[in-house]
Amino acid sequence: MEAQLNIAINVVLNSWNTILGMTIGVLDNVTDEDMMREVSLGRNTGIYLLGHLVAVHDRMLPLLGIGERKYPELDDIFLNTPDRSGKTMPPVQELRAKWLETNNALNTAFSAMQPIDWLSRHTSISEEDFAKQPHRNKLNVLASRTTHLAEHYGQLLFLKPRA
Amino acid sequence: MEAQLNIAINVVLNSWNTILGMTIGVLDNVTDEDMMREVSLGRNTGIYLLGHLVAVHDRMLPLLGIGERKYPELDDIFLNTPDRSGKTMPPVQELRAKWLETNNALNTAFSAMQPIDWLSRHTSISEEDFAKQPHRNKLNVLASRTTHLAEHYGQLLFLKPRA
Repeated sequence: MEAQLNIAINVVLNSWNTILGMTIGVLDNVTDEDMMREVSLGRNTGIYLLGHLVAVHDRMLPLLGIGERKYPELDDIFLNTPDRSGKTMPPVQELRAKWLETNNALNTAFSAMQPIDWLSRHTSISEEDFAKQPHRNKLNVLASRTTHLAEHYGQLLFLKPRA
Repeated sequence: MEAQLNIAINVVLNSWNTILGMTIGVLDNVTDEDMMREVSLGRNTGIYLLGHLVAVHDRMLPLLGIGERKYPELDDIFLNTPDRSGKTMPPVQELRAKWLETNNALNTAFSAMQPIDWLSRHTSISEEDFAKQPHRNKLNVLASRTTHLAEHYGQLLFLKPRA
């Protein structure tokens, strides 16, 4: 049964790794100039989406009990306010470096986790509530961030030159 | 340990249900007329993406051993050829009905499955290969189709009127 749990956990981890690799691949193939473009008319720019993803992934560090946040200053620009709010964004090269750092920190921590660790509570639910709601675990955070990433991956694809 | 496996499987099922519900919500709020629009300049139309999702989800029926395909005729238009291939698409109302049918068929079957069933092989891998690659199971198909759906959900959002 333990082997079965490992297999199930690995399905979710593989899903995260796959979509993360695909997103890294797209971002590597979009120029800094093209990152300033909107993914669709009147929608978010590439640079905003990149900053948004860094902020969301950075928040996973404390949420999963992995470590302190690295870039809390990004929340104001990329989570609490929409694109074109008038707030000054960091240069795209700086966001690219933070994107790399954040994902490396997550994946280093993930590779040290045991399958059973993924079923423990995330840090925004109390022990009392978790006893009643055991699905509010770390695996659930990972699965939710995986679909969130996939959603924006589908949008970032539009920054690539059309074939 | 069996309870733990249930919890892990339910994380993946909840992820599917959440993104499916969100996609249904968006499609319900896009008019048939707006479904003819491109999600971004020069990219897929809404109607093409809807047909594509129906075809991909319809293929899950035999792949998961749930049943026969309902709409194999969609593959030629929505899987084997890109948008604007010149092939005649079914009316969007017909695709909307098929989208509903397909997802209902899947979810009815899912609700009858036991957690352990999700770790059994899908039908495109042989028993011999599955013995060596136990991650090629039904849960993996579900997780993969969940990120696929999330990717297109992020794109379909662009058909909604801008706030």
